[in-house]
Amino acid sequence: MPFRRSKGLVKWIFENQHKMQSVRRCSSLARYKEMEDSAASEHDVSGPKTRPEITPEISFKHDDLQVRLAAPYQLQTKPDAVELGFGKYFTDHMLKIHYSKHLGGWQKPEITPFENLSLHPAAKALHYAIQLFEGMKAYRGVDDKIRLFRPELNMERMNLAAQRSGLPMFDGQELIRCITRLIQIDQEWVPHSETSTLYVRPTLIGTEPTFGIMEPESALLFVILSPVSAYYQTRGDGAVSIFADPAVVRAFPGGVGNRKVGSNYGPTIEATARAAKLGHQQVLWLFGPDRELTEVGAMNIFMVYINDQGERQLSTPPLNGLILPGVTRRSILELASQWEDLVVKEEVITMDRLEDLNDRGRLLELFGAGTAVVVTPIANVGYLHRNIRVPTTSQPRPVYRRLRDTLLAIQYGHVDHPYAKVIA
Amino acid sequence: MPFRRSKGLVKWIFENQHKMQSVRRCSSLARYKEMEDSAASEHDVSGPKTRPEITPEISFKHDDLQVRLAAPYQLQTKPDAVELGFGKYFTDHMLKIHYSKHLGGWQKPEITPFENLSLHPAAKALHYAIQLFEGMKAYRGVDDKIRLFRPELNMERMNLAAQRSGLPMFDGQELIRCITRLIQIDQEWVPHSETSTLYVRPTLIGTEPTFGIMEPESALLFVILSPVSAYYQTRGDGAVSIFADPAVVRAFPGGVGNRKVGSNYGPTIEATARAAKLGHQQVLWLFGPDRELTEVGAMNIFMVYINDQGERQLSTPPLNGLILPGVTRRSILELASQWEDLVVKEEVITMDRLEDLNDRGRLLELFGAGTAVVVTPIANVGYLHRNIRVPTTSQPRPVYRRLRDTLLAIQYGHVDHPYAKVIA
Repeated sequence: MPFRRSKGLVKWIFENQHKMQSVRRCSSLARYKEMEDSAASEHDVSGPKTRPEITPEISFKHDDLQVRLAAPYQLQTKPDAVELGFGKYFTDHMLKIHYSKHLGGWQKPEITPFENLSLHPAAKALHYAIQLFEGMKAYRGVDDKIRLFRPELNMERMNLAAQRSGLPMFDGQELIRCITRLIQIDQEWVPHSETSTLYVRPTLIGTEPTFGIMEPESALLFVILSPVSAYYQTRGDGAVSIFADPAVVRAFPGGVGNRKVGSNYGPTIEATARAAKLGHQQVLWLFGPDRELTEVGAMNIFMVYINDQGERQLSTPPLNGLILPGVTRRSILELASQWEDLVVKEEVITMDRLEDLNDRGRLLELFGAGTAVVVTPIANVGYLHRNIRVPTTSQPRPVYRRLRDTLLAIQYGHVDHPYAKVIA
Repeated sequence: MPFRRSKGLVKWIFENQHKMQSVRRCSSLARYKEMEDSAASEHDVSGPKTRPEITPEISFKHDDLQVRLAAPYQLQTKPDAVELGFGKYFTDHMLKIHYSKHLGGWQKPEITPFENLSLHPAAKALHYAIQLFEGMKAYRGVDDKIRLFRPELNMERMNLAAQRSGLPMFDGQELIRCITRLIQIDQEWVPHSETSTLYVRPTLIGTEPTFGIMEPESALLFVILSPVSAYYQTRGDGAVSIFADPAVVRAFPGGVGNRKVGSNYGPTIEATARAAKLGHQQVLWLFGPDRELTEVGAMNIFMVYINDQGERQLSTPPLNGLILPGVTRRSILELASQWEDLVVKEEVITMDRLEDLNDRGRLLELFGAGTAVVVTPIANVGYLHRNIRVPTTSQPRPVYRRLRDTLLAIQYGHVDHPYAKVIA
């Protein structure tokens, strides 16, 4: 490989990752929100150049919501908590909002009994993956009230994904109001338990039934609800094992790795199945020659270690266009940055660095975070025919557990916090 | 950027593209078929390591096909040829084959009246893009017979995509027989014209209604038919303009760029819309620091030029894991390699090389090829704020036209050729 080519390679990655660099330079957590804002706007190579501008006039409106309740014979028996699993049962109602350019845009939102969708077999969502989704949870609090956790962040991310996918945008506050009404109607489905919740899945799909590979002129936004318990089936301590395979790549500069679109998931099934056969729960997606950790598909990744100054440090890879900007990720960074006894940083983490820290006994914890998984400790990383055992669950007062307890305390109303929004 | 990092970068791309290199070394066209076979197997970084092994016992079977014909009142009026467009109208019947692990695998194929699909709103195809498709055409020949063009290649590619997506495989010959029956039933929909055809769209989607990101336990294979005319709406000479934007990436090593899955298309909508606003029909997808041409999304790309030996040469980028292995692409390479007056090669083509050849007057033609577009001349490439005008349509006896005429002669039965398979 000639020298010219290697120089070109470096230049190319430089160009494609200039934002990765600029995000790295912002190490002060006080600037975290600003960073995420900027990562989502002008710096983001793979995203839109500006925040999506929502014109409220053209969004659907909660005030137009029409409700058709299920008949008594349509109501389903609620499963036992032990049977829940993740996303196997659904509630009695759903929300649907049609979009039709032909009919002037967004139509009136409607809540109907839960039912199958009737889709034209040429719908673009089924051929060209013109589809995106979100994941939120409704929590039954200690006070019996139901709360959502920072739903406005999900709405913002959903609109960014819509813009990236040629799907119509909308006013996030209006969708939150519609979802609130849906949850109120199905509120008996919100588990009376702190080990299970009601998972909320907003989905937006292109329904135009033509074969052109272009923006669809019709779409359907629908929201379904599923009572869920733990995402992973694991050993007693809840710790998972992940598999880091340098040969598989989840996302690429110029792609959609930072948007919650279906296309990020289908191509991962095969690699995940291979990892499962080796006994791991998930794939740890690496990127680049230095094998930088990016994310785990169903969760963002965090590391706790003793840094070169001898301090305890919490780190996660910076948002660089390849990583989903998780709501739990962001909340963890914001919460932990207020703790006196922990340094908190977004920084590049390579597999070499991870192994080196582990070999020196300075790697304390590795864990994942996301709406579905909450905070999940990682005890093992399969990598290049060996296993890197991480002492996450043998720490005396682990950071991951403190974070999980803090998040759950907010979500289940043990403490009052602006992140939690009471909806019923 | 430190030197260590740049060396690592080169090494990484080396590792990820070792097969790209090995494919490049095979320049003899006599070895083309072998190359494509090997590209689809052990050399392909992003694909399976072996050919999919189809166990005929577990496939569905044409012998089990059940037919429920549309009632006379359900039959639709056939549109005029001038109204056809591409993929806007559909015939009276469709083929459906359900797969259910629970019920023992593939179920009996059935032909039914064309109708909407009833899908559970949690179907994995709608959330995680667990979906793939194929594109074929049925041609009404000069002898009034109906032909398919190398359908076994589409079946092979469809099975490779299924394997990559965690979807069930099947015996391609059985599906060809079922599709043949479907076309026979709707044979009056095959246009009596050599400017239009019946487009055949086999689609395979994951239907299991659960939120786990894993192989679906149920799936639906369906086939719909659409009478179509030209794919592009263009100027008089049929030439298109394409837009090469180095900032956007369609596929990457370790991804699914060489499989016909939905995930390759959704993320391209935004870039294609931007190109359209600038007056181009499609995006020319580049890759890497040298800006190698890969493909155009709806077609593979070919170049005709005067090579360094003064010969006329037809070139297309080698299958390197980032490029869809087109049936038309393969047929063109096989056909043209038998012509005495043309050197035919798979070789890396960079934007610099393309511009340099054009500046020297040695670039003769640029064209795209695919089932939908047949062979489409390219007259202009938008690139870095300038337009590269290519004299494709002003050649006296252009290669693209000879190839198009040869393909159409085979497809419409003007000549007998093993590529064409009479089905009715």
